[in-house]
Amino acid sequence: MKTNNLGDMPKEEFRRYGHQLVDWIADYFEKMEDLPVLSQIEPNSLRDNLPDTAPEKGEDFSDIFKDVDELIMPAVTHWNHPNFHGLFSTSTSSVGVFGEMLTAAFDMKAMLWRTSPASTELEPVVLGWLRRMMNLPEVFDGIIYDTASVSTLHAIAMAREKLNLDIRKKGMSGRTDLPLLRIYCSEQTHSSIDKAVLLLGLGTDAIVKIPVNDRFEMDTKQLRQEISDDIMRGHKPFCVVATIGTTSTTAVDDVEKIAEICRRNEIFLHVDMAYAGSAMVLPELQHHLKGIEKADSIVTNPHKWLFTPFDLSVLYVKDVDLLKQTFSLIAEYLKVTESVTNQMDYGIQLGRRFRSLKLWFVMRYFGQEGLRSRIRDHIRLAQLFTIWVEMSEDFEIMSETTFSLVCFRACPKGIEDLDVLNERIMNELNASGEAYLSHTKLNGKFTLRLSVGSIRVEERHLKKVWDLLRKKVSRKRAKGHKEE
Amino acid sequence: MKTNNLGDMPKEEFRRYGHQLVDWIADYFEKMEDLPVLSQIEPNSLRDNLPDTAPEKGEDFSDIFKDVDELIMPAVTHWNHPNFHGLFSTSTSSVGVFGEMLTAAFDMKAMLWRTSPASTELEPVVLGWLRRMMNLPEVFDGIIYDTASVSTLHAIAMAREKLNLDIRKKGMSGRTDLPLLRIYCSEQTHSSIDKAVLLLGLGTDAIVKIPVNDRFEMDTKQLRQEISDDIMRGHKPFCVVATIGTTSTTAVDDVEKIAEICRRNEIFLHVDMAYAGSAMVLPELQHHLKGIEKADSIVTNPHKWLFTPFDLSVLYVKDVDLLKQTFSLIAEYLKVTESVTNQMDYGIQLGRRFRSLKLWFVMRYFGQEGLRSRIRDHIRLAQLFTIWVEMSEDFEIMSETTFSLVCFRACPKGIEDLDVLNERIMNELNASGEAYLSHTKLNGKFTLRLSVGSIRVEERHLKKVWDLLRKKVSRKRAKGHKEE
Repeated sequence: MKTNNLGDMPKEEFRRYGHQLVDWIADYFEKMEDLPVLSQIEPNSLRDNLPDTAPEKGEDFSDIFKDVDELIMPAVTHWNHPNFHGLFSTSTSSVGVFGEMLTAAFDMKAMLWRTSPASTELEPVVLGWLRRMMNLPEVFDGIIYDTASVSTLHAIAMAREKLNLDIRKKGMSGRTDLPLLRIYCSEQTHSSIDKAVLLLGLGTDAIVKIPVNDRFEMDTKQLRQEISDDIMRGHKPFCVVATIGTTSTTAVDDVEKIAEICRRNEIFLHVDMAYAGSAMVLPELQHHLKGIEKADSIVTNPHKWLFTPFDLSVLYVKDVDLLKQTFSLIAEYLKVTESVTNQMDYGIQLGRRFRSLKLWFVMRYFGQEGLRSRIRDHIRLAQLFTIWVEMSEDFEIMSETTFSLVCFRACPKGIEDLDVLNERIMNELNASGEAYLSHTKLNGKFTLRLSVGSIRVEERHLKKVWDLLRKKVSRKRAKGHKEE
Repeated sequence: MKTNNLGDMPKEEFRRYGHQLVDWIADYFEKMEDLPVLSQIEPNSLRDNLPDTAPEKGEDFSDIFKDVDELIMPAVTHWNHPNFHGLFSTSTSSVGVFGEMLTAAFDMKAMLWRTSPASTELEPVVLGWLRRMMNLPEVFDGIIYDTASVSTLHAIAMAREKLNLDIRKKGMSGRTDLPLLRIYCSEQTHSSIDKAVLLLGLGTDAIVKIPVNDRFEMDTKQLRQEISDDIMRGHKPFCVVATIGTTSTTAVDDVEKIAEICRRNEIFLHVDMAYAGSAMVLPELQHHLKGIEKADSIVTNPHKWLFTPFDLSVLYVKDVDLLKQTFSLIAEYLKVTESVTNQMDYGIQLGRRFRSLKLWFVMRYFGQEGLRSRIRDHIRLAQLFTIWVEMSEDFEIMSETTFSLVCFRACPKGIEDLDVLNERIMNELNASGEAYLSHTKLNGKFTLRLSVGSIRVEERHLKKVWDLLRKKVSRKRAKGHKEE
């Protein structure tokens, strides 16, 4: 007998509202283009519209959902919008949403094999599929974390553990027997390295930022020099982070050369391809992986450019036992007798979401062919946009378009402060809600970044951005002339 | 014009399969009780049934979904099952699944306010609601992370930062000016403390595990002594972790007394109530919070016992500026001009899922009243089970039932090795799929743990476990007598 007012939502109610929600999402994906990319609300306006306390009595789901439409929706920046070209353009596929629905329904915490055989066993299979598609050597074992920041944190923790300085047990404070540990990456490396290093207690000073060449690739001569200087000084180089597809410009470090330097100095090599890993499903781009077999760990994020909902980051490691040695700790209430993999042994998080399910769905629904054709098309679109820029007198390319990111700026004749001009153009475009671009600085110059990656993007979306940009430059030029 | 074979799943297909999926989940929740709690598969049997490579051509979703039924389902341990009493019993509500559907559809990465105003502004509102329901002082600001392990990691990182030893910048290796940093917790504290400490480079030796009294609460006299001894030795005590609701027995440390010791020695106090925080929505249990206003940080996990799908852990901190100071790092491509909160500044992860949405749904759909009545009922059921144990000659209670966890064991007369007996009973019960219990060791004795927390649990489910246990003991006793 069911006690009154307890338990879950009645089944028929779940069914009814669930169907409505599916239809709502279908409509949302369909009408996406009519929405402003960037939310148009003023800061704090959502917060100010919400009460200070939870309702005393439960509310009908239809009332809650009304507020999603009226209050939440205006505050959403639509990452899935085909004209979201800022940061890295990411998007979920519909089938990825299905994966998340089931993951939420199962609500499993993958810590022990026995509490989650499905997650424990599907994950290595799916990561094997991805590894083969990316043509990475079989020697790499994959594990899923939430974000690249966390994957990278684990990689650098492994590098620290590999030193055999007993840091896991004795720590680093109050010791006088430890050399200064040093880690190397280029000036263009992602800030997650800095965060990982400071969290690990190594200090941001431990990071040696190597200058880049004119293609924004790590200067390997300089890397060799810095390592050698550090060794002379009695410091201990323990990790190098190379990047395939840097955040600012998607530059590709020379992994082969860097790996050779690491090998000679017994340094752990982590390769960050959080964004560009997805492009490695294309055989014609796999030459960028040269030397990858010498890496100790690699991070790639299917949630970035493989149509898989956030979050799902993959760390591939060569020595999975080292990863386990870095983190494994087993409390009595978690002891089991089976000789199986227990995912809790491989990281900071004890429980893990059943994340491999959505990636399995994506890889099966689209197939290798479907994934390749979509990635290939995005690269085609980025190249096309690059050509438009190159052919225009009012714009210029600021770095090579290696994958699906275009770095460029407006440079019309007669306007002196191009930094101010480009920042204004970007801010106006973003504020209009028509499209979203982000920026970086290259050699001190304000540079626009246009990233192509949404599963919904088509040529006409790129055309739209291009037309808007050209119009803005014409208008600025006219205005500039008038003011003269 | 849409290029052929690109783009997302057609809208009508999403609608059709989405509806089927909602119905499937509705049926799953309904028929849950007929499924074995623990998956009955042999290790590797799922893995061995899956191909080595992703399909070349995309597959129809109906084929993919058939495999969910045939391959995935047998490998699922059903955390939502009302007879999942192991570890901590957790469950998602239906409305929580709705939250995850929308979060996946929006697919936002909450790093900057502008890329996610909805998440950035809803989160503090919902955490304010929760804080008020739990009667925590207004001085605490909340932030959502994925798991308690990560929340705790951030808390201890804050404690380290607060020392002003410039560890963020200079690190700890190669320095001779740092004292040995020490952190204190009871022997019953969760293993996530150990993982956080080793990750932070402090070493597991830095953890001083304080003995507990006969109620499994931290011995505060011993804490005072250890801190004082460490200071005498020139070490630097920097953090104490107290627990309200320990993992083994849900014991409650004396936060008031511990806070006073911390205050006198200028030590950061972190309170772990990952599990029991949810029980604090009951005014009649809020006396356990005595002294909480003196804590520096508190972790509680709505994904544990507040019917919110995994993952959603909340860290409440008194000094949110210190949290920001610990982690903030801004790369050029993430610089914005608005004077707003950017969630990326408050932790290791750059992007964050829109997690507050599901908790908002849960708090509104059930209301404060509905949440309180469910938590209250779970505690009633645990107390009821406790009475059954106490009234039985064949069983005994091993620690006080403070919240919704019962620690007990079988102790029938005439059987000598109670550890072996109880382990066998547990393994048989778990293997049967009828219910899932876990264990711990208390004073060296093998102890059964029965946790009540599923939104679907009713008195009859507890009765079922109790009947099964009694039958097993009767049978063992009969068998034991026969063997004599």
